[in-house]
Amino acid sequence: MKHLEEKTLSSKQIFRGRYLKIEQDEVQAPDGKTYVREYILHPGAAMMIPLLPNGNVVMIHQYRHAVKQVFLEFPAGKRDHGEETILTAQRELKEETGYEAKEWKFLTTIHPVIGYSNEHIDLYLAQDLTVSAQQLDHGEFIEVIEVKPDDLMRLIREGKVSDVKTQIGAFWLDKILRGDWN
Amino acid sequence: MKHLEEKTLSSKQIFRGRYLKIEQDEVQAPDGKTYVREYILHPGAAMMIPLLPNGNVVMIHQYRHAVKQVFLEFPAGKRDHGEETILTAQRELKEETGYEAKEWKFLTTIHPVIGYSNEHIDLYLAQDLTVSAQQLDHGEFIEVIEVKPDDLMRLIREGKVSDVKTQIGAFWLDKILRGDWN
Repeated sequence: MKHLEEKTLSSKQIFRGRYLKIEQDEVQAPDGKTYVREYILHPGAAMMIPLLPNGNVVMIHQYRHAVKQVFLEFPAGKRDHGEETILTAQRELKEETGYEAKEWKFLTTIHPVIGYSNEHIDLYLAQDLTVSAQQLDHGEFIEVIEVKPDDLMRLIREGKVSDVKTQIGAFWLDKILRGDWN
Repeated sequence: MKHLEEKTLSSKQIFRGRYLKIEQDEVQAPDGKTYVREYILHPGAAMMIPLLPNGNVVMIHQYRHAVKQVFLEFPAGKRDHGEETILTAQRELKEETGYEAKEWKFLTTIHPVIGYSNEHIDLYLAQDLTVSAQQLDHGEFIEVIEVKPDDLMRLIREGKVSDVKTQIGAFWLDKILRGDWN
């Protein structure tokens, strides 16, 4: 696939907001010409599917101002200082839901915004769960709920779970629970 | 879900790059306090699953500089001037792959970046395909390939299709082809 790659000629951070940072690169494309590419610099993230002994998954309702909707999501969060994403996952599960898991399994890595962000999200399955109390960050408002995997798949089909990381997590769980993937 | 919502107090565009635009809003959260939210302003997009009579899907290889990798993707593109996404889908399928489809079916809407972009992508199934020539945009380098749906699912499981819109499209197609969803 080398023949499709672009060569970075120069790279500079052109914007730093309160939360978002933008990088602007000059690249040489396969046609030999120079183009400008812009993208968000993101630290990377982790998401987990917390699967309870009763077969339900632990999910959250969270308002997302960028889209101005409340979303049904799996818990997730950004990496702190380049930590390994398994640590991010363990921290965020505890903070957002109050749950802790003894059994963790890495599932896959996804790229949500290949057009304009270097973000990646590592997905984990979290089992053997115990619950204590949420420890929400300042400015975070999250409601924890239990959902049956079958209901989650129905909601996806009805267009009611449009967050991509959550939808992908649900499809992976569906494959695992059906015994297609292990 | 009203009790999780935030009220927009003020809104301003704080950055406009060559391609990216950032909005910064002041919001009043459920705790009554004021917080700052930043997000990319995006026109919305369309993606399609072009399904051939031989059972294969038409996909593309494209280098994505933000992640510095070549991705296996379904064809997709941004809306022009708020056009309906079915028109975006028809235009982009032709431009990126050279294919045209007579039969279009809307599947679902996804939100890839609920943390920091208002982007939405409408997913379509495109059938009854005929092929002519690609009409790539300036600075676009795309290779068209045919993939068997079973191979696509195997590649996803192996972590080789990490683009979220493509992975979600593949899972929807899998449900449709198995007769679980129609």
